[in-house]
Amino acid sequence: MRSRDSAVNQMLEVARQEAIETTWDRFEAQLPQCGFGELGVCCRHCVMGPCRISPFEDGPQRGICGATADTMVARGLVRAIAGGAAAHSGHAKHLAHTLHKWVKGEAPDYPVKNEAKLRAVATRQGISSEGLDVRELAAKVVESVFSQFAEGEEPLAWAGATMTAGRVEALAKLGVLPVGIDSSIAEMMHRTHIGVDADPVNLLLGGISCAIADYTGCHIGTDLADILFGTPVPIQSEANMGVMKENSVNIAVHGHNPVLSDVIVRIAKEMEDEARAAGADGIILVGICCTGNEVLMRHGIPPLTHGVSQELPIMTGALDAIVVDYQCVFPSLVEVARCYGTRVITTMGMAKIPGATHIELVEGEAVEKAKEIIRLGIEAFKARKGRPVKIPQVKNKVVSGFSVEAIVAALSKLNGEDPLKPVIDNIVNGNIQGVVLFAGCNNVKVPQDNNYLVMAEELAKRNVLLLATGCGAGAYARQGFMTPEATEKYAGEGLKAVLTAIGEANGLGGPLPLVLHMGSCVDNTRAVDLAVAIANKLGVDLDKLPVVASAPEYKTEKAVAIGTWAISAGLPVHLGVVPPVLGSPLVTSVLTSGVKDLLGGYFIVETNPHKAAEKVFAAIQERRAGLGLGTSQW
Amino acid sequence: MRSRDSAVNQMLEVARQEAIETTWDRFEAQLPQCGFGELGVCCRHCVMGPCRISPFEDGPQRGICGATADTMVARGLVRAIAGGAAAHSGHAKHLAHTLHKWVKGEAPDYPVKNEAKLRAVATRQGISSEGLDVRELAAKVVESVFSQFAEGEEPLAWAGATMTAGRVEALAKLGVLPVGIDSSIAEMMHRTHIGVDADPVNLLLGGISCAIADYTGCHIGTDLADILFGTPVPIQSEANMGVMKENSVNIAVHGHNPVLSDVIVRIAKEMEDEARAAGADGIILVGICCTGNEVLMRHGIPPLTHGVSQELPIMTGALDAIVVDYQCVFPSLVEVARCYGTRVITTMGMAKIPGATHIELVEGEAVEKAKEIIRLGIEAFKARKGRPVKIPQVKNKVVSGFSVEAIVAALSKLNGEDPLKPVIDNIVNGNIQGVVLFAGCNNVKVPQDNNYLVMAEELAKRNVLLLATGCGAGAYARQGFMTPEATEKYAGEGLKAVLTAIGEANGLGGPLPLVLHMGSCVDNTRAVDLAVAIANKLGVDLDKLPVVASAPEYKTEKAVAIGTWAISAGLPVHLGVVPPVLGSPLVTSVLTSGVKDLLGGYFIVETNPHKAAEKVFAAIQERRAGLGLGTSQW
Repeated sequence: MRSRDSAVNQMLEVARQEAIETTWDRFEAQLPQCGFGELGVCCRHCVMGPCRISPFEDGPQRGICGATADTMVARGLVRAIAGGAAAHSGHAKHLAHTLHKWVKGEAPDYPVKNEAKLRAVATRQGISSEGLDVRELAAKVVESVFSQFAEGEEPLAWAGATMTAGRVEALAKLGVLPVGIDSSIAEMMHRTHIGVDADPVNLLLGGISCAIADYTGCHIGTDLADILFGTPVPIQSEANMGVMKENSVNIAVHGHNPVLSDVIVRIAKEMEDEARAAGADGIILVGICCTGNEVLMRHGIPPLTHGVSQELPIMTGALDAIVVDYQCVFPSLVEVARCYGTRVITTMGMAKIPGATHIELVEGEAVEKAKEIIRLGIEAFKARKGRPVKIPQVKNKVVSGFSVEAIVAALSKLNGEDPLKPVIDNIVNGNIQGVVLFAGCNNVKVPQDNNYLVMAEELAKRNVLLLATGCGAGAYARQGFMTPEATEKYAGEGLKAVLTAIGEANGLGGPLPLVLHMGSCVDNTRAVDLAVAIANKLGVDLDKLPVVASAPEYKTEKAVAIGTWAISAGLPVHLGVVPPVLGSPLVTSVLTSGVKDLLGGYFIVETNPHKAAEKVFAAIQERRAGLGLGTSQW
Repeated sequence: MRSRDSAVNQMLEVARQEAIETTWDRFEAQLPQCGFGELGVCCRHCVMGPCRISPFEDGPQRGICGATADTMVARGLVRAIAGGAAAHSGHAKHLAHTLHKWVKGEAPDYPVKNEAKLRAVATRQGISSEGLDVRELAAKVVESVFSQFAEGEEPLAWAGATMTAGRVEALAKLGVLPVGIDSSIAEMMHRTHIGVDADPVNLLLGGISCAIADYTGCHIGTDLADILFGTPVPIQSEANMGVMKENSVNIAVHGHNPVLSDVIVRIAKEMEDEARAAGADGIILVGICCTGNEVLMRHGIPPLTHGVSQELPIMTGALDAIVVDYQCVFPSLVEVARCYGTRVITTMGMAKIPGATHIELVEGEAVEKAKEIIRLGIEAFKARKGRPVKIPQVKNKVVSGFSVEAIVAALSKLNGEDPLKPVIDNIVNGNIQGVVLFAGCNNVKVPQDNNYLVMAEELAKRNVLLLATGCGAGAYARQGFMTPEATEKYAGEGLKAVLTAIGEANGLGGPLPLVLHMGSCVDNTRAVDLAVAIANKLGVDLDKLPVVASAPEYKTEKAVAIGTWAISAGLPVHLGVVPPVLGSPLVTSVLTSGVKDLLGGYFIVETNPHKAAEKVFAAIQERRAGLGLGTSQW
């Protein structure tokens, strides 16, 4: 089984018939994958290498410089964290530049949309709003953001202001509070250079510090996106490839950063006439990966597909353009697009693909650029008109938009004075056993979505409240798990009662969706904010809460960074794909057990989704017992 | 042949007899090295991988995401540049922190030693010294340095102020002038994350930008080291393992950053009595790798050995302590030391080795830390007293300390008004055909020092002026090439005449050394400063000068970064070890030829030192012809 998504499976059959290479084909061609790389015991950090540690005793146990498997594995892992932190924080920095340009009058298309969030963030960061207009305050917030990237003398303020006091203290005690995002990334690269840090535990502590820098970048990214584009509120849409229509101009936005795609959403509406003049019924915008999540959360743009299946919508013959920014954009798109006339448009100077059309996003000309891009889609539509298309008739309803603000607003309908009380009461009484945040990607090593679906079913029936972000949220959206109907079908009685009570108090006439869509992968800190609010209310730290994160099908360095800050935040974190660390029993043991004593969080590695659900549930029960709450058997 | 160094070969025989594992043994155990890694066509940047591109047509030609060999090779290379830039600039930032602490009164052991350099650097960077005392001016310089790490709005001022105007213009035209060192490193990590930059040429341009950030970090590193510890002037010493004495406390300083070792040099003199009280004749400090170069250049501390042979001095049984900071410190040292009672002392929190003694450098307590460390050496001496030692009786005279300031001072004895004129005149008249800077490391893939020695002999006899830094300088120091005698023996008539004229004008009674020691590997910008001064005087850009850089035995990511900024500066750069790029004919072609049209510089990859000398000489002749100067045949 390649995927649990029937649209994907239909398109895989098309790919087979038309002999188009897919992610799965390339994966199979790579098999067997290099065992050294899988174990993390290959090092190319200098030109004396490559070196490899043998898993067998009679083979080499040290690299040429004397690095052991422990050193190599730790070095590789922390470089991955640095890569992830660089991606998230690069995204955040880009948003800061956009806001900065607006402040300076250079980007009139990017006004502060959400002044309330701007003021709330400023207050949280100790920036006085008094007497400042929006632009002046935005300038101060941008200045504060830029200060987080440069090395400063104090620990990162945006991390400190958003974590529990206990967390900050625990991290400070370990000496792992970073003083700059970019400087932390650079330091990890230095430490992993040949002949620098050879101590695996010291390296892992450095990795934790860099992961906190990643957390900071993520939080800034979400804050600024909400300020620029609005904080999401519940919104209904549809998901999966069936949302495309043969006689529409179908344009996908793909990547992670909504800077251009948010404008495209607005401009596409204005260009409907132009599309109709070209013989189309209109323009259908769709989303792929996390740019898709951003525009779904804020504008109800339907998510098309995610991660490993990103090439397949092209093979419908109905996709006229894919507009990409960066991260998780497979360069293979261009090869497939070539066979179908789909325009692949890159928009970031730092992320080009040979063979794509490059239209550089310039914030001061965002509207013109958006029009130019949409016109390419309309042209492609004209060129394909009359050619048969193969759109899988698969789509599901999705309710998304569950920012923390939206969740609190929904809860406040139950208790206006103390919105979190209903959640806490229901955790205490066991109607909600705990909370699991599903995050991360699709990975070709896992039948697409299977781990997400199995785990959600298993946990929902045991009354675990489910949140999701990123391609994980995408999986649940495509598969109909973000609907009241899924709650009716899968939720245990306690959970169903709670979700129904909230839904009815909000006039929905039924429960909230089974899985709450909290945003893109950069938005994982939304879930932390919620957990921090609950922890602070309970007067305990995060490492006591029955809250677990799970990345059942992750693939990126970003996910490695997120997972690392999540354990540092005190959460058990399940990984459904084995990270390249098994070559070092020491590193493996530190990450899955030793770190628990230091920070409360730890990794649970389990590829079988049934067993994974069981282990995650057990971790929840352990936390419940720790709080003196009633526990349940599996 | 493992090494051209007879001391090394003697110790390798000891290692064989005593069954101690060496770098060479571990290298042989790694053979055959992974061909995918060697070609650069292995990718572990996401957890769908590892992916590999087959060198054969019937194997996979794309990674799972669709990345081609071109993408993978370019990604790998620019991550290496990021690693190198992180190391150099981390070193520079550390020096800035030290100076900053002195400014704040927290590090009284680190006063500005060289006020003239401080004022010269300030003037160069447009920082007004007027009316400021040393501390106030140092504060301003430190502030300027820190600003180079954070992302700014303007291209890095420390790069702009030290390159030719033409270079700055050429780099600006390509859009590769970086605006921050740490931010540039972070951006390269972002761009090499899965699904970001897939365009190999775009990636290489990013790599060039990051390499300019590396250049900036290197320049800052040298400037600050000179300010804190003094600008080197010619100084005589001895090199190689024969400098150790059986009845002395022999202590090696190893790594790259002189912050602690410079204090150790001073304190060791004060602790002679303590050593004598322990029954020793005294304390002999020696250097390994570039920390060794730093203390050789400034204090005449003898260099012991370099790079691949760093474990061997321990096996003499006479080395009592190795004090390490960071970079190129093999973790294997601890294993070997365990057999001989040598204390391995790590001193940087970010660079530990399991099994070593860690004594953290705290600038405010540097003297106490230095004493504590030296005492460990004295204790180790006491413990080994009476045990036989095997010190190879190999040492050579070395004259080092050729900073640009020192070279100009020497030249000014020939022409006080216009010190560079004698050099330029002799380049024009052909007495000096050109200049080659030897830089880089030792690499176990090359018989140690062989490429350095063969190339120097070949080029010297053809009247090429030779400069050296880093472990390259170390090789020439150990092998007696940094002596007037070597000039007499190897230099062609024209070169000999020039070096003799300068030497005699300076009262040396003979020529300058055959190879001029310009410092550690972070000091390569010293050679650029000299070239820039010559270029500016001639009114041409660097890409016209008959100046070539060569890294015949490089191994580190730092060297990859240096090589890349050297080609960006307009220099042909020889590499004597094949970089992991051959898996991409495109990347290989861009680096060895395409880039020449853009920037003037390019890589010459040649592992045979005779042929390499020939190619380097041909590159010099091409430049001479371009300038309308007389040319010579090989």
